[in-house]
Amino acid sequence: MAQSTEQTGGGVAEPSATPRRRRPGGRTERIRAQVLDAVGAELAERGYDALTLDTVAARAGVHRATVYRRWRDVGGLLADFCAATADDDWQPEDTGSLEGDLAALNRENLAALTVQPSIAAALLAASFRSEEAARGLRRLWADRYARCEIIVARAVRRGELPPATDARRLLVTATAPLYHEVILLGTPPGLDPDLPGRAARTAVLAAGAGAFSRPTPANDPSEGLS
Amino acid sequence: MAQSTEQTGGGVAEPSATPRRRRPGGRTERIRAQVLDAVGAELAERGYDALTLDTVAARAGVHRATVYRRWRDVGGLLADFCAATADDDWQPEDTGSLEGDLAALNRENLAALTVQPSIAAALLAASFRSEEAARGLRRLWADRYARCEIIVARAVRRGELPPATDARRLLVTATAPLYHEVILLGTPPGLDPDLPGRAARTAVLAAGAGAFSRPTPANDPSEGLS
Repeated sequence: MAQSTEQTGGGVAEPSATPRRRRPGGRTERIRAQVLDAVGAELAERGYDALTLDTVAARAGVHRATVYRRWRDVGGLLADFCAATADDDWQPEDTGSLEGDLAALNRENLAALTVQPSIAAALLAASFRSEEAARGLRRLWADRYARCEIIVARAVRRGELPPATDARRLLVTATAPLYHEVILLGTPPGLDPDLPGRAARTAVLAAGAGAFSRPTPANDPSEGLS
Repeated sequence: MAQSTEQTGGGVAEPSATPRRRRPGGRTERIRAQVLDAVGAELAERGYDALTLDTVAARAGVHRATVYRRWRDVGGLLADFCAATADDDWQPEDTGSLEGDLAALNRENLAALTVQPSIAAALLAASFRSEEAARGLRRLWADRYARCEIIVARAVRRGELPPATDARRLLVTATAPLYHEVILLGTPPGLDPDLPGRAARTAVLAAGAGAFSRPTPANDPSEGLS
């Protein structure tokens, strides 16, 4: 369990960050933290198929009845695991440049996906099995992308990007190739060590060419007609 | 079954194209085609969990013993399904421009992922369950991306791209955001109807800014030293 709880706080959809998770005091919250740590560790080490309320209760050192009463089933555990992961203080790294920030984000995402065992990879796989895991993970992605918009805001402040930049499109362009290669195409991450940096650079070059500029009253002809 | 066999021949990793699959004559090949059609239809309509050799044999109208002898298990069926899907004559559409070709490819991929029922989406989900399905799907992706390199070659011939363009990186940049949004982030495709075209445009803008240019002896300083 140590290894999984030591994973660094996540990039986009990186479900770990246990050390940084906010933990209000109280026995109820302590039990929740123990149970969700066990969920992450079991998921990463043994996968969705081996995940049961009994194994989680045993690993957490919490009474089975408590786990059944509070989380009901594996879907309930996974949904709460995602919710708790989103409830952390993760922020994207501030490197001083747009390309640096996007590359750091990609490196963090890659590390989360390739650490052994990887909670992030296991949760992605579980999202194809459990509708509750899928919903929870999607909310987690949405939260992570929203937090990453600060990368774009900082670049706008530095004059690296025009104010009317579609942050979400830029962020998806910068991060999608890494997930595509590693998760869907199964490209071994060692095969292309520059992938995080290159995907970042590509998004910055596209941004410089106006790919993510939102129409503004000044440059959208349809606005002029109204 | 009709619907699944009528899906159009695939874009990247689109596993259907039954009508275009090459079918050498002979009873053995005919039985294989019947069985693999049934695999695709069962997978799309009922998913990996419901896929058994018995249901496939019944749907295909083929004797159970034949299916067990030839494909052994569900993994064997899925591996052969991927192999047969790759053995078609699919080619990316030639629209006359790089952006048009990439947008057409994205629209084809989106259609394959969102048709109901979708063999492509079901096979993607199955690849998180079965190592044989994962290997088969990865070979299929590799084959599809290799075929799509003709899009880049045509653009080079038209003078839209420099000769030393990394085709694979350009293709992944153009196609990854769509898979990321639809498969991983769960963005409803109707929410953003311009996604296929915009992802294509972004890749073209990045290409114009040199994002996919390979170093050549003329512009790589390290080459000059040798």
